[in-house]
Amino acid sequence: MADPTRTWTAALIVIGDEILSGRTQDKNVSQVATWLNVQGIRLREVRVVADDRQAIIEAVNILRVGNDYLFTTGGIGPTHDDITVDAIAAALGVGVEIHEGARAILSAYYKTRGGLTEARLRMARVPAGASLIENRMSGAPGIRHGNIFIMAGVPHITAGMLESLTGTLEGGLPLLSATIGCWVAESEIADLLGATERAHEGCQIGSYPFFREGRTGANFVVRSTSQETLDACVTALSTGLEQGGWTVHPGGI
Amino acid sequence: MADPTRTWTAALIVIGDEILSGRTQDKNVSQVATWLNVQGIRLREVRVVADDRQAIIEAVNILRVGNDYLFTTGGIGPTHDDITVDAIAAALGVGVEIHEGARAILSAYYKTRGGLTEARLRMARVPAGASLIENRMSGAPGIRHGNIFIMAGVPHITAGMLESLTGTLEGGLPLLSATIGCWVAESEIADLLGATERAHEGCQIGSYPFFREGRTGANFVVRSTSQETLDACVTALSTGLEQGGWTVHPGGI
Repeated sequence: MADPTRTWTAALIVIGDEILSGRTQDKNVSQVATWLNVQGIRLREVRVVADDRQAIIEAVNILRVGNDYLFTTGGIGPTHDDITVDAIAAALGVGVEIHEGARAILSAYYKTRGGLTEARLRMARVPAGASLIENRMSGAPGIRHGNIFIMAGVPHITAGMLESLTGTLEGGLPLLSATIGCWVAESEIADLLGATERAHEGCQIGSYPFFREGRTGANFVVRSTSQETLDACVTALSTGLEQGGWTVHPGGI
Repeated sequence: MADPTRTWTAALIVIGDEILSGRTQDKNVSQVATWLNVQGIRLREVRVVADDRQAIIEAVNILRVGNDYLFTTGGIGPTHDDITVDAIAAALGVGVEIHEGARAILSAYYKTRGGLTEARLRMARVPAGASLIENRMSGAPGIRHGNIFIMAGVPHITAGMLESLTGTLEGGLPLLSATIGCWVAESEIADLLGATERAHEGCQIGSYPFFREGRTGANFVVRSTSQETLDACVTALSTGLEQGGWTVHPGGI
């Protein structure tokens, strides 16, 4: 059973000039975050860095020691701008080697797709001592080295890699959440939110305002690892809102 | 005229538990990145941190000295989880004060919306010595302190703040880009990409594979601050692809 006093954390490094240039809308932060929550692991920090060896090395070395797990997405393809494996090997102070299991996978995958060329064989390179993460969507596998999980940048391939890791990582209690919505300006009920959060230890209340259909509203997300505490906090907040004359929308607006 | 030898850089800190929990899909990274490019400023790093005072302080103090500009989004509303102003003031070692200009703006904005309550007045608090960034969408302004730009988290409000900053920041040459697409597996032309990039100093070629309509393809994004170099690199890459028997799609697929 998960130790309720222990919080497991992870960091994510998104590697890619295409995100920093604004060309590509990242989708991996939210899918990795959502997946981690279910594993009982909190995503504590994300860094987006360029396809730059030194930037990757620095981020890896800070985040791998400060967290239980470190995930990376991007930069593991066959082209010249794919430098993630080399940078992580350098960060770890290990060499880069061809993983024979990865070679076999790529060899089989490319058998009917033009063969395993030198460029494609690049995708079998791993930091020495690594194991593989199954790729259920295409050829090249992801890579695990200690507490570092090196995944693809293309979101549906990343999703498949996460799926193959489901249930294999030690974590704590999953973070539960419940949302209620209200057509209210959050500034009108700021005191209620603060007081309700303080009265329910182990709960966090996030307030997410929006402007829609010409009206101001907000969704309130309550988070806790305890279902009981969560329910009590949601009930208290709902009661407070109703007493103020607002209609509560369970599940959010 | 912009100094072609000087690269201006920025970092962005996205502040918010809702991004790290996976609940909210971030949209600010790509819009800030795109806007910065037009200003001739490169987005060099993004960090996503929780609504956590110490995490914000650490990120601010590292990134504000390593870059020409530092932008933040999120955490400047009226509720208890909005701690950005206090954390940045602490990072800078200055106090927090009510900005009289912000008080006047909020006072006018809330005149017909229930008045300027204590919670709403929180949004007039700034790190001592700050100036304001115009908010064209709603009441509370953004905040500038030295090279730090503190903006809203709600994307369309952030967009309005960026618009009001357009043309006011010193930058260098804007980064130009051109995209061509090809129905080719990037692994088949990895050598061509690397050789073409090496032959065109000051150009970067990014390779972005996809799988669509049952076929493998890739878009190649060439970036340079020189239109001439960019054009030469795109022409060379297109010629190389055509000589290999592939059809080039200008603008990408």
